[in-house]
Amino acid sequence: MKTLAIFGSTGSIGTSTLDVVRQHPGRFRVRYLTAHRNAALLCAQAREFAPDAVAVVDPASAREAREILGSSVDVLSGMDGLLELARREDYDTLVSSLVGFAGMLPTIAAIQSGHDIALANKETLVVAGEIISRLLERHGVALAPVDSEHSAIWQCLAGEPPHSVAKLILTASGGPFRGRSREDLADVTREEALRHPNWTMGSKITIDSATLMNKGLEVIEAHWLFRVPPERIEVIVHPQSIIHSMVEFADGSVKAQLGLPDMKLPIQYALSHPDRFAVPGPRLDLLELRRLTFEEPDLETFRCLALAYEALAAGGTAPACLNAANEIAVQAFLDGRIGFLDIARVIEESLAAIPAVDAADIESIIATDAETRIFATSCAARSARTVSFS
Amino acid sequence: MKTLAIFGSTGSIGTSTLDVVRQHPGRFRVRYLTAHRNAALLCAQAREFAPDAVAVVDPASAREAREILGSSVDVLSGMDGLLELARREDYDTLVSSLVGFAGMLPTIAAIQSGHDIALANKETLVVAGEIISRLLERHGVALAPVDSEHSAIWQCLAGEPPHSVAKLILTASGGPFRGRSREDLADVTREEALRHPNWTMGSKITIDSATLMNKGLEVIEAHWLFRVPPERIEVIVHPQSIIHSMVEFADGSVKAQLGLPDMKLPIQYALSHPDRFAVPGPRLDLLELRRLTFEEPDLETFRCLALAYEALAAGGTAPACLNAANEIAVQAFLDGRIGFLDIARVIEESLAAIPAVDAADIESIIATDAETRIFATSCAARSARTVSFS
Repeated sequence: MKTLAIFGSTGSIGTSTLDVVRQHPGRFRVRYLTAHRNAALLCAQAREFAPDAVAVVDPASAREAREILGSSVDVLSGMDGLLELARREDYDTLVSSLVGFAGMLPTIAAIQSGHDIALANKETLVVAGEIISRLLERHGVALAPVDSEHSAIWQCLAGEPPHSVAKLILTASGGPFRGRSREDLADVTREEALRHPNWTMGSKITIDSATLMNKGLEVIEAHWLFRVPPERIEVIVHPQSIIHSMVEFADGSVKAQLGLPDMKLPIQYALSHPDRFAVPGPRLDLLELRRLTFEEPDLETFRCLALAYEALAAGGTAPACLNAANEIAVQAFLDGRIGFLDIARVIEESLAAIPAVDAADIESIIATDAETRIFATSCAARSARTVSFS
Repeated sequence: MKTLAIFGSTGSIGTSTLDVVRQHPGRFRVRYLTAHRNAALLCAQAREFAPDAVAVVDPASAREAREILGSSVDVLSGMDGLLELARREDYDTLVSSLVGFAGMLPTIAAIQSGHDIALANKETLVVAGEIISRLLERHGVALAPVDSEHSAIWQCLAGEPPHSVAKLILTASGGPFRGRSREDLADVTREEALRHPNWTMGSKITIDSATLMNKGLEVIEAHWLFRVPPERIEVIVHPQSIIHSMVEFADGSVKAQLGLPDMKLPIQYALSHPDRFAVPGPRLDLLELRRLTFEEPDLETFRCLALAYEALAAGGTAPACLNAANEIAVQAFLDGRIGFLDIARVIEESLAAIPAVDAADIESIIATDAETRIFATSCAARSARTVSFS
C-alpha cells in the first residue's frame, strides 16, 4: 500500500490520479490533498478518500472548505499550508500536479523531506532543473515523470544501460494549428486555440500545445530528467499522438512507447513502476488506426519551440525567464489582451531583456521569475496597445 | 571478450555475425566456424578469423576445405563434426544460424554443454520448443533470439515484469504478394516469390516470407521464447518493416522496437545484451519515411499462417510436422516441381495425415520429421502430376 499526497487534486492530472486510486482498491492510500481554490470539488474528494488533511492555497476558499468539512478533516491554507503538508513524514509519494511556477516550492520541500515524487508539474524542472537534480541525488529520492512523453521515454529506458542512449525523440501532436502559416495565426481566437485535437487538458497547457511551447518545456524537462544534452533531444510532429515518444540507442535501435491518449496510463506507471497494474478498458488498435504519420515541426511559425531550445542553450536562469514570460503571455492571451503571435513576441523580448544568471540557488530563480513577470506584463500591455492601434 | 562458435557461418546470418565481430575489435573471439558445403567461403573466413577448428557437414566439401587450409586449422566433417564442436567447453556462446531442422541437434548439444545460445535457427524452437525450454532451465542456459521480430520483443521486455505482458504483436511485411488474391498466386514464379520487398535473406526463408509461413514459424517460436499462449500472439501486416514487433502490457501501454531492416542489429544485441555497442552508419529517419501503415493479414490467401496457428494449438509433434512438410514443399517449389499454392496444400495434407503425438522426447520429433518428409514428398509429387495434367 503506497500512501500519496496529491498536490493539485482538483486539476486535470489530480482528478485522473484519483481515478487511478479508485481503479486499484487496496494499492493506494490518499493521505493529503491540496487545491488552489476549488473548495467544492476538494471537499467532495476529501469525503470520498478520507485524507488526514487538505490544504487550499486561496484563503477564502480555505475558509469555505472548513465550513463544508467541519471538524472531520484538518484544512490548512495558503502556500504555507502546502509546504507544511509536503514536509510531513507519513506519506510515500508526492504527486505534484500543481500548475506553473507555483509547483516548485512544495516539490522541493517534499524532496528535502525524502519523499519520492511523481512529477506532472513540468515547470519545476524547467525553472529549477539544476537544483532539483542536486537535491534528488543528495536525498536519494526518485522522481518519476508523469507527462506522457517523458513517461514514454522512461518506459523505453527500462532495462537499458544509461550510456547507450543516443537520442531522445519527443513526439508532438502539432496542436490545433498544425500546417498553418504565421499569417493564418495572427487572428486566431482563444476558443480555436483551446480546441486540442487529441488531449483534454487544462487551459494553460492547451495553449502551450497550440504554440508548441509545451513541447519546448518538455525538451528542457527531458534534458534534466534524462541528462541528455539539447542537441540530442529531437522533436518530431506526429499528429495522431499514438507514439508518445521514442529513444534511439547507440546501436541504432529505436524503442517507442505507444498508447491511447489517456493520462491515467502515465500517472499509474509513475506510481506502479517498475511493476505494471492491469487495467480494463479500450486498447490501442493499430488495425483501426491504419497509419501513423510524421512531420518536421515548423519552427518559423511556432517560434516558442525554438525559443525554448535557445533558453536551454543559454542556460542558467534563461529557462526560468522563458517559463515566467510564457505564463504571463498565455494568461494575457486567455484574457483576450494579446493576440496568439504576441505570446512568442513577449517571450522573445523577455529573454532579450532579462539577463541569464547562474541558477544554482533558488533565490536567483525566484528573482528572475519575479523580474520577468513584471517585464512580460508591461510587454504584453504594449502588445495590446499595438493591437488596438493597428 | 566473448568467445563464439558460429554455426552456419557462410549463410546470411553467419556472414552478418562476422560483420558484427569485425565491427567491434577486441569484443569477440571466433573459436569455431561451420558450414554446410561452401568450403571456399568457410576457408576465407578461417584465414581472417583464425578459429581453433572448423566443421563442414558435406564430406566432399570438408575434404576440399582440408586441402585449402592444410594443417593450419583443424577441419572436422559431417553432423558428428558439428556436434563435437558444439560440445567443446572452450567457448561462451553458440550462434546457431544453421538452416532448417538440421539446426536442432547442434543447438541441443551446446545447451547440454552449458553454452549460451544466440538463436537464428527458428526451426529448433518450432519443432522442439518443449524440450529446449526444459533443457535451458535444467542447464541454466540463456537463449537470445536473433530473429528481428523476437529481438524486438525481447528488447521491449527489458526491465519489464514478465507477468505484465498482455499480448505480443509480431509485425509482418506481407512479403512480395501482399494484397494479391489466391487466384493471382496460382501461377507466380520462383523468381517473383524470391523478390522480398525489404529484406535480403536466404532462399528458404524468403519463400517462407512470401507464404507468410515465416510469420507462422515466428508465432510458434515466440510462444516458446516468451511463454505466451497462442491466443495472445497477434500478427499484424506492416509493409515498411520498420516496427520490428511490439508488446502490449497489462496496463494498456505498448512498446515497439524500430530500426532499419539490417540483421546486424539483432545479431549484435543478442551478443551485447543487456549492453548495447555503438555502431556508426545510417539511422532510422521517420521524417524521411513520413508514415507507417498497418493491415490485417489475409489468412484465406496466405493459408500457411493459419496452419501454423493450428499446429501450435494442436501441440505435441504437430509443429514438427508443419515444419518438415514446409521444408519439403518449399524445396519442391524452388525446384519448380509444384506451384506456389501447393505449398500450403502439401502442409495441410501432411498435418491431416501425420498424427500429432507427445513431443517430450527428441526421438518422437525425429520420427515425426522423417515420416512427414516421406509423406510430404509423395504429396508434392502428386501435386506436380496434378499440375502437369491440368
